[in-house]
Amino acid sequence: MTKKVVIIGGVATGMKTAARLRRRDPEVEIIVLERGPSLSYGACGFPYFIGGDVASFSKFDHTPQGIPRDAAFFRDVKGIDARTGCNVTAIDRAAKKVTYVEAGEEKQLPYDVLVLGTGSTPVKLPLPHADAGGIHSFWFPWDVQAVDQELRERNVTDVVIIGAGFIGMELAEAFHKRGLTTSVVEMQDRVLPQMLDKEMADRLEKPIRAAGIQLYLAEKTTGFTEEAGVVTGVVTDKRVIPAQLVIVAVGVRPNVELAKAAGLKLGPTGCIAVNEYLQTSDAAIYAGGDCAENTHRVGGAKVFTPMGSTANKHGRVIADNICGDRIKYPGVLATGVCQILDWQAGSTGLNERTAAAAGFKFKSVVVPGQDRLAYMPGAKSLIVKLLAEEGTGRVLGVQAVGMGGVDKRIDTLVAAISLGATLEDLSNFDIAYAPPFNGPIDNIATAANVLENKLAECFRGVNPKDFEAVRDHEDYLFVDVRTKGEFAKNRIAGIKQMVNMPLGEIRAHCQELPVKEGQKIITSCQIDLRGYEAEVILRGKGFKNVCSLEGGMSAWPYATECDEK
Amino acid sequence: MTKKVVIIGGVATGMKTAARLRRRDPEVEIIVLERGPSLSYGACGFPYFIGGDVASFSKFDHTPQGIPRDAAFFRDVKGIDARTGCNVTAIDRAAKKVTYVEAGEEKQLPYDVLVLGTGSTPVKLPLPHADAGGIHSFWFPWDVQAVDQELRERNVTDVVIIGAGFIGMELAEAFHKRGLTTSVVEMQDRVLPQMLDKEMADRLEKPIRAAGIQLYLAEKTTGFTEEAGVVTGVVTDKRVIPAQLVIVAVGVRPNVELAKAAGLKLGPTGCIAVNEYLQTSDAAIYAGGDCAENTHRVGGAKVFTPMGSTANKHGRVIADNICGDRIKYPGVLATGVCQILDWQAGSTGLNERTAAAAGFKFKSVVVPGQDRLAYMPGAKSLIVKLLAEEGTGRVLGVQAVGMGGVDKRIDTLVAAISLGATLEDLSNFDIAYAPPFNGPIDNIATAANVLENKLAECFRGVNPKDFEAVRDHEDYLFVDVRTKGEFAKNRIAGIKQMVNMPLGEIRAHCQELPVKEGQKIITSCQIDLRGYEAEVILRGKGFKNVCSLEGGMSAWPYATECDEK
Repeated sequence: MTKKVVIIGGVATGMKTAARLRRRDPEVEIIVLERGPSLSYGACGFPYFIGGDVASFSKFDHTPQGIPRDAAFFRDVKGIDARTGCNVTAIDRAAKKVTYVEAGEEKQLPYDVLVLGTGSTPVKLPLPHADAGGIHSFWFPWDVQAVDQELRERNVTDVVIIGAGFIGMELAEAFHKRGLTTSVVEMQDRVLPQMLDKEMADRLEKPIRAAGIQLYLAEKTTGFTEEAGVVTGVVTDKRVIPAQLVIVAVGVRPNVELAKAAGLKLGPTGCIAVNEYLQTSDAAIYAGGDCAENTHRVGGAKVFTPMGSTANKHGRVIADNICGDRIKYPGVLATGVCQILDWQAGSTGLNERTAAAAGFKFKSVVVPGQDRLAYMPGAKSLIVKLLAEEGTGRVLGVQAVGMGGVDKRIDTLVAAISLGATLEDLSNFDIAYAPPFNGPIDNIATAANVLENKLAECFRGVNPKDFEAVRDHEDYLFVDVRTKGEFAKNRIAGIKQMVNMPLGEIRAHCQELPVKEGQKIITSCQIDLRGYEAEVILRGKGFKNVCSLEGGMSAWPYATECDEK
Repeated sequence: MTKKVVIIGGVATGMKTAARLRRRDPEVEIIVLERGPSLSYGACGFPYFIGGDVASFSKFDHTPQGIPRDAAFFRDVKGIDARTGCNVTAIDRAAKKVTYVEAGEEKQLPYDVLVLGTGSTPVKLPLPHADAGGIHSFWFPWDVQAVDQELRERNVTDVVIIGAGFIGMELAEAFHKRGLTTSVVEMQDRVLPQMLDKEMADRLEKPIRAAGIQLYLAEKTTGFTEEAGVVTGVVTDKRVIPAQLVIVAVGVRPNVELAKAAGLKLGPTGCIAVNEYLQTSDAAIYAGGDCAENTHRVGGAKVFTPMGSTANKHGRVIADNICGDRIKYPGVLATGVCQILDWQAGSTGLNERTAAAAGFKFKSVVVPGQDRLAYMPGAKSLIVKLLAEEGTGRVLGVQAVGMGGVDKRIDTLVAAISLGATLEDLSNFDIAYAPPFNGPIDNIATAANVLENKLAECFRGVNPKDFEAVRDHEDYLFVDVRTKGEFAKNRIAGIKQMVNMPLGEIRAHCQELPVKEGQKIITSCQIDLRGYEAEVILRGKGFKNVCSLEGGMSAWPYATECDEK
């Protein structure tokens, strides 16, 4: 008798499991039950439909040859029985059957193996007037079509997005591109708060604000104003922001109701708990995609990381294990990347918050540079932040913001961190070098070298956000070692005691610095290479209390001033 | 007494060693002896000066702030005594001193530690008229300035480059951009022969030829024609190619004369042999950069891989070890990347030739795709070739050619291969995913999955070059499973028995295929995803001898035909 596999959910995990299963086994019976009208659609591209980069919604649910990925396609091409409009209402684990409703009729289906790919649902704000017209989530195809319709049919001039995560920021770009007045309200104190440490997010803020997107950070949405049932504004704890269209993008929660009702174990994140083979607490039931819990590869914490890319990987592993393999899914790094206007931001592994939560003793460094040889046409700024464990030098995580090359460095670190790399490993990777692609010492190797220096305490860097916190009250002499011309053009604002002494003069003239006995010296330059050289020279000359400002002017996210203003 | 470190060679390894050493130790005496007039110049950018991307030669030997990196700079800023025009003629290891000639005067210098960063020299062709005017190497600053002068002062319309390696191809682009008739002569049967397997190089050939650069491959240069002492043409074993300017870029050899005369051990590649701490056979003498031998991280072969990026890494390791550390340099992956017109090519690790030479039993796969979600603006074609060891699934090497995203995939694999990744590792990397950067399943993961299928023999792919070799005489039925429209537009030329049956019809109609008993079926589509599906379906339907054409039309480098022609 052939094995019967029932899959609940026909989007990423579900259809990937089904397709792989069929390729491996022409005999197994595969039935997919999807409650919605669409199968195997690509939700990650939705913001680009709103922004106009993707001209037709059909790109998301048709093959590249224009064939709809519907039930007929899956039957004829993939040999899969995929049924839309089938809402599963119960799982009977003892009898190994599911109950579902199709066109109002309750039906039952036995299974040998069950796969849960039930996905996730956007979180709603339990606030006054939250169900007014013009307020939307942005997750399912019908959300996107509703937003698109609003834009076409109503006179929308002001959009407010609540939540500055991936979807919020991608949508901010999309609405901005359409010429709408676009605002983002975020409860936390930064954009992309899951992904970026404060000083990295702060650096990204500048170009976003400069482009004209309003950011209201550390600001809590408390309600909405409406007229005749249609939203007119977003109320925060600080202001009312006019809006004819509001997107609530404050996150999603895993769809676990079915699993919970069936007595399957949930994990600490509220997702369905799975073992490394992606089996639930019932060995005959697998779970994958947004509804399933992931394990972080650094530190081992359980995490909720809903990503289409992860869902696809889950599908493959589940299919292989159904076929009798024992493939382990090794977990995630909570990798993320986001294009915002001309800027890019990405991260993988742990950041300051998650590294501390995981109990690591670590140091970090912020290192700016260019994404290729600086004199090459098209060279773009790129700031890398690297975290490593003290003692072992194990790389814990990386963040990058810049105008180019962010994704390359993140992916390189994904491979490195997944395989347990140390800073010394990073330092010696034989990275592809040619002037259009990189400098002779890659940004990652540079960051690793600087962080090695910091762990060895031959570099004493101060993080920009830490310096900003003490900038106006601590006692220190700030020595900017750039050229006179660079110094005149821009420098950090509001420093009481600042001296400009170009690096070339430091060796000969450092004794002339107006530093008091025991006073701290903070050196700085454009990217903190010269600042670091100055720090080392000064220490060599007998100055005891010297450090330098990590990332220099290039990574400085806060106020600056210039002679010409 | 302070330690005295003498460094021979003041370009990449030498100046990096010196700078790092000074930062770590303010006391150590550091003297650099450089025979040429320039210090610390960036030779890798030279082709981009000829092509006009880099407007001024000073970009190569000045800091980004426009300060010349000359002896005064290194003295004042770096605290290093760097002497140009100092030609070292002998090393007396017993007495620990070097003899050098400065301004015609012979001098001696004692050392405690000696560092050899003597670099490499271009190979000359021992051919008739090889010293005629207009024939140049392209390696040292004076080479570049001579070529630049020729272009400015003589009426050059035709340039021939001998050698289709990195420098040859970068220069081909440079001359082509200047509007010159540009030809490349290469003795081997492909462009970038060190880096690419035949079918990958062949795929790259198409756009290079289409742009108007002449390629004469598998063609041996036998001499030159000249008039009045100036070159007029390049003579090969097949033709004479007119040329007023010729660049000989057939490789370089390590400068080991000094080391050899001093009795230091050379390795099998002819480079200076070093241990993992980069010490030569004399523990007081280190060697790094082009003159030093490298170890390949996969397979352990000794290799000559002259790269500026490697030279910098060597310098850092040498400096740290001089300071008393015991840092191991782990070796190289022979990584390379090259931009040619709108195309990119890269590789890391082993290719078919080097993997076979290293004794690995391996399989490979060619997988085309796009560098991001196919429907996103700016999506570019990208073909990946992956090699893995049979049995273990260990990743041995990767090659990529395409119009975008090559460097990212190469660097990700650099990290992966350096740390011993298997295909399963690649398959599960949590690669950064968002539509502007990638698809939900990264190209590398796709290639890894396909190669896993191939190793498990559930995918039976035929490499394009292997198919091309038997295309016109073997007995097989070729089944193109693309749509009728795709088939009409382009298909592989010269196949005797070809059928177009779209994938959606295969399950229902495969029994109608005009296949003879036992005859081989080769399936194909655009990228071999549908071809693979068809292969699996046909096998499931009982056809025994089925395989599919790896990479489909997208990776097919050879002749095609269409209905409209």
